[in-house]
This record gives sequence, structure tokens and C-alpha cells, in this order.
Amino acid sequence: MVTPREAHVSEEAGSGVSASPRPVAKRRAVSVKELAEGLLGGDRGALARGISLVESHQARHRTMAQALLEAVLPHTGGSLRVGLTGVPGVGKSTFIERLGTMLTGGELGGARKVAVLAIDPSSTVTGGSVLGDKTRMAKLSGDPMAFVRPSPSSGTLGGVAGKTRESVLLCEAAGFGVVIVETVGVGQSETAVAGMTDLFVALMLPNAGDELQGIKRGLLELADMVVVNKADGENVTAARRATAEHRAALRCMPRRDDEPEPVVLMCSAKLGDGVGAVWEAVEERAAGMGASGALAQRRARQATRWLDEAVSERLGLAFKESPGVAGERARVEALVRGGAMSVSAGADALVHSFIRSESAEKQGR
Amino acid sequence: MVTPREAHVSEEAGSGVSASPRPVAKRRAVSVKELAEGLLGGDRGALARGISLVESHQARHRTMAQALLEAVLPHTGGSLRVGLTGVPGVGKSTFIERLGTMLTGGELGGARKVAVLAIDPSSTVTGGSVLGDKTRMAKLSGDPMAFVRPSPSSGTLGGVAGKTRESVLLCEAAGFGVVIVETVGVGQSETAVAGMTDLFVALMLPNAGDELQGIKRGLLELADMVVVNKADGENVTAARRATAEHRAALRCMPRRDDEPEPVVLMCSAKLGDGVGAVWEAVEERAAGMGASGALAQRRARQATRWLDEAVSERLGLAFKESPGVAGERARVEALVRGGAMSVSAGADALVHSFIRSESAEKQGR
Repeated sequence: MVTPREAHVSEEAGSGVSASPRPVAKRRAVSVKELAEGLLGGDRGALARGISLVESHQARHRTMAQALLEAVLPHTGGSLRVGLTGVPGVGKSTFIERLGTMLTGGELGGARKVAVLAIDPSSTVTGGSVLGDKTRMAKLSGDPMAFVRPSPSSGTLGGVAGKTRESVLLCEAAGFGVVIVETVGVGQSETAVAGMTDLFVALMLPNAGDELQGIKRGLLELADMVVVNKADGENVTAARRATAEHRAALRCMPRRDDEPEPVVLMCSAKLGDGVGAVWEAVEERAAGMGASGALAQRRARQATRWLDEAVSERLGLAFKESPGVAGERARVEALVRGGAMSVSAGADALVHSFIRSESAEKQGR
Repeated sequence: MVTPREAHVSEEAGSGVSASPRPVAKRRAVSVKELAEGLLGGDRGALARGISLVESHQARHRTMAQALLEAVLPHTGGSLRVGLTGVPGVGKSTFIERLGTMLTGGELGGARKVAVLAIDPSSTVTGGSVLGDKTRMAKLSGDPMAFVRPSPSSGTLGGVAGKTRESVLLCEAAGFGVVIVETVGVGQSETAVAGMTDLFVALMLPNAGDELQGIKRGLLELADMVVVNKADGENVTAARRATAEHRAALRCMPRRDDEPEPVVLMCSAKLGDGVGAVWEAVEERAAGMGASGALAQRRARQATRWLDEAVSERLGLAFKESPGVAGERARVEALVRGGAMSVSAGADALVHSFIRSESAEKQGR
């Protein structure tokens, strides 16, 4: 059966947990209430534990993660959520390291706390990683004003995206004014990231071959801002040409009426040139979308889509845990595996017995 | 409510349909029974219509597609299902065109009927396409022994993959002895293709830069066979080196115990060199897996996973169509959008009212 909302509250205080999936021998168990307090006080350790709770697959941890999220919900929504994507090799880490340290160091207005989360489609599929771990951003990882967290390393893309969305909320509750969610710009992970951020920035190479045209087109359709990176040394001319080409390409792309035209800029994350200007453009655009109501609209659309995905995940869980399904499942699976029943007919039969079983349980109470 | 299995049968005969989503003014409506007969007789027009039925989003078409699949199910499973992937530019079309015409022309043993299906992640996300349409394989598309079908152009990757799996069954029922499912090797579409084929072949460039290492690693983990293409002209040396590198890399990859080591070959699809040897290796490997039982095991695992996905899709549909959910949905959505309720609590509430509503409906009968 589905966990009712009330069940969270009873576990909210008292019940101890060591949330990390990693060895935790030396960690003291901590209650959700303590975690929430630490988190709201800006404690990075509490934030890390909170995210581990959110990422955990254990039922008890899930319940506690929900209680934690409920507790901090009134303190979320206050950050600027920036999505960042680009093919491997475009310089995402270098860009984030540069931008992040400029933000925490107060070089771009007042000093800001910066959180970096990642969605790595390769790690969700194979356990390997395109993005690598947080050692990619050594300087930012050691910065007390920053919080860098690699991608959850297991689960489907949809599941990982849900966890990352919840992690964004926890970062906000912990007072991080800028949350950057990065991903490799291939397949569908960039759609997931665009679906959870206020502004989606696509980093581009100055001279990627025509091979990647298709991938680029997909990115351009999602992007609010395109930044041609590596505009340094002998690449400057190519970067200028790429910038002009992207501007031309973007003019032909369909856009939502309530959202402004994407901006195309170039920078060198390695040298730091143009990174400040990129951030100014991000803030300007966010302010404009805030004033026009487009930002609120986008977040509302995202919440609706997120709700749909959460419903689908919970339905799946209720199905899996339904006592009436288990026996029928073995029978149907054998028929389908043997080619005696189509997958569709099998699925219909199983969904039927799920609903019958849930109904019987309801009547029995 | 969920469509019970019996509902298919009543529509199986008599009910007319023009299945294609494209303009069909001049097509005569045709019954499922006629379609099944045409399809089992090897009629490519019937196969095309059958696939359009499978791809349709209309409820009536879905029901008919199920009836069609049930009707042809005993005649499926007989093909060699080959998955093919590779980054844009690696020469997938050229390779398939070359291999396909060799197979249909009887250059590789007896003449074989060849079907080519595609899963294009970019088209599912953006409506654009990395793979382009079937004009890419002009010669094969015009070959009466071949059937070339581009990717369904809308829906989620999961939905498209489900449709493609059903299309594979229809191709088999129509007597195609070789079914090639191709995709761009980025993100998760290659996992979907590996999950529906007997053998998964990764095409590689002779000299792709280090940029693509992460993507390559993901492909290598899934691949049964790696083929370095474009081994012609000045690329031959690089192709030899790449072949050696892939062999070394594959030795470090985790594999299932019951499946043999991947094979690494090189070819020039443009010139035709080595393509026959690739096919020999495919057939040899498939024969080996057939004899050891590994192939049957793989198909059984795939059927189980497919069943899981179909259940999840149907549950979502039952939820969407549940009369008890609609009103509650608006209330919960407003709370979630306004930040007054967490997405998780909202999803719990909605799943609750779904099950309550289905139970009430059951009791009322």
C-alpha cells in the first residue's frame, strides 16, 4: 500500500538514522529534526546527510527524507537555479570552477553560496561516469562557501532526476543562493535538467564538427543561453564564427511566447575571460523573467510535470508491494517468457489483479 | 479503468481502420484480420500499416494493435535481432545500406529479407532528428526484400522503445529473417536497443578524440561486437590502432558469465571491405549463444523487463482515466504549484484517491 502522508510525521522526531549509503561507522545517528535544524542553519554536513537520505532506496530513509523535505519546504525556492550542459570536453568543470569561485569570492556582486549538483546519464545506466566525481572541481570542492555533489550513481534517469530536484530544495533550505545543476548534453538528461532549473545554459565548443549537429540542435531548442567556451588562443576566430552561427540558428527555433530570445555569448573559462559577462547575462535574464511572471510560470509548469512523475513512481511502488500481485506475476511472467502470452495482455492481467487486490484490501478494513 | 484482455477480441474482426498517422485519403479501411493475413503473407504494405497502428496514440488503434499482435504472436521470434549504434557521423546508414543489400542480394549465404527500424532519441525529445528519415538508405529502401522504417517521431524514449519492440514482432511475423534496430549512441537509447536485440553492435570511428571517451565506455559495456568503421584510405592505420585499443579496453569490462567476450573487427562500409566478415561474426556468435542457451536467457530477461515497463505504462493510463482522480488532481496541483504541499505528499494523496476510486467502482458493480 501507499504510505499516507501522516506516516511521515510520526517518524519525524526521535527515530535515528545514519543516512549515507557509504560506510558510516563513525557517524552519530541523527534525527530528522536535528537534520532539518542543521540544514536550515547552513551546515554543509547536514546538507550532505540530507541529500544521502533523499538518494537512499531504503523505505525507512524515504519516509525520513519526506519528513525532512516537508520540514524545510517553507524555506525553499529562494535560489537562482541554473542548468548547465555541454558535450564531454566542452569544459563544464572548468567553467563551473571558475564561475563558482568568482561567485563565492564576491567578484560578481556580494559573495554568494554556490551548490553544484550533477546528473550523469552514463552513471545511471552503467555505473560508470562521464562527468567523473567531484575531484574535477578541486578548488570549489574545498571552498567553505560551496557545496559540490556528484550524481547519484544508480537508478533510472527519471529516478535520479527526482532525487536531484529534491536535493535542489535542500540546497535552497541550506541558504545556497545559486544552485547549478550540470549534465552531459546527450540524450535526455539535458531535458531533465532544463525541467528543474530557471535558466538553462548550453556550453558549446568553438569548432565541433558537423557530426554533432543533431545533438547541438536539441540543446539549442532547450537553451535560454548559449555560451561558446574555449574562446582563447587560436580558437578565437572559430569561436566568433560559432557564436554568429548559433545566433542565426536560434532565430529559426520555435520558442514559448512568454520567454525571451536566447542570448549567445563567448568566453574562455580557462583564462576567465567573459565568465563574468555570462553571469551578468544570467542575472539580467532571470530578473526579466521574474518581473514578467515568466519565471513563476516556468516553475509552476515544472511542478506539475514533477507531480506527474512522482505519481507514476509511487504507483509503480504500490504495484510492486501489492500482496495480490506477487503470485499472479510469476504465472504471467512464465507465459510471456514462453511466448504464450503477449507482453500487453500480460501487463493488462497484472494491472487488473493489482486493482482487484487493492480493492479487496480496502473492503477488508 | 484498464482494458481487459477480452476487449481486444471483440474488435478483432469487422472494425475498419486506416492506421497511418499520415494522410490516408486514398487508403481503403482494413480490418485487423485482413492486416494480420496480409502481414503473415509478407505484404510490406500490411506491415507498414500494422506498425502505424502500433505507433498510434489513439485508444481505438491501441486496442486494434493489441489484437493484431495477439494474432501474429505465434509467428514471431524467428528473426536474428541485431542492434546497431554509434555516434552521428560514424557511418551507420552506409553500413546498414551495404550490409542490407548484401543480405537481400544473397551475397552472404541465401538471400534474406531485412527490416531496419530506428530509435532516435532526438526526435522523441524535440521532434527534430539525428538519424534523419529513410532517404538516408535510398538503395535499401527501394529493395523489395527490405523494409526500412524511421523512428516514431513523438513520445518518451520508453514509449518509443515499446512501440519499436512491437514493430520488431510484426517484422518477424512478416517473414523478415534479419531485423536491424539502429540508434544514435548517446544517452539511453542504446540501452533500450540493447534491451530488445539478440546482438548489439557498436560502430566506432577510427580516430574520435578523447572527448567521446565517456560515451564510448558506455557503448563498450553494452556491446557484443565492436566494429571500427571507415578503415579505408589514410584512416587504415588509425583504425588498426583503435581496434587494438578497444580489444584492450573490453578485457577490463565486466561481462555476464553466460555470455562470450565481445569481438572487435574493422571494416569500410563505404568500400564494402570487411562487412561480410562482420556478418559472419554476427551469425557465428548468434549460433553459439543459441547452442549454449544464452540467447534464450537473454530474450527471457528482456521479456521480463518489457513486462515491467508495460505494467508501468498501463498503470499510468488507468490513473489518468480514473474518474475519482480528476477533481482531487486540480486541488493537489494548486497546492503543489503554490509551494504549500510537497510534490511527494501531493503524489501520495493522488495515488490514494486513485485506489479509493477504483475500489469504490469495484464495490459499486
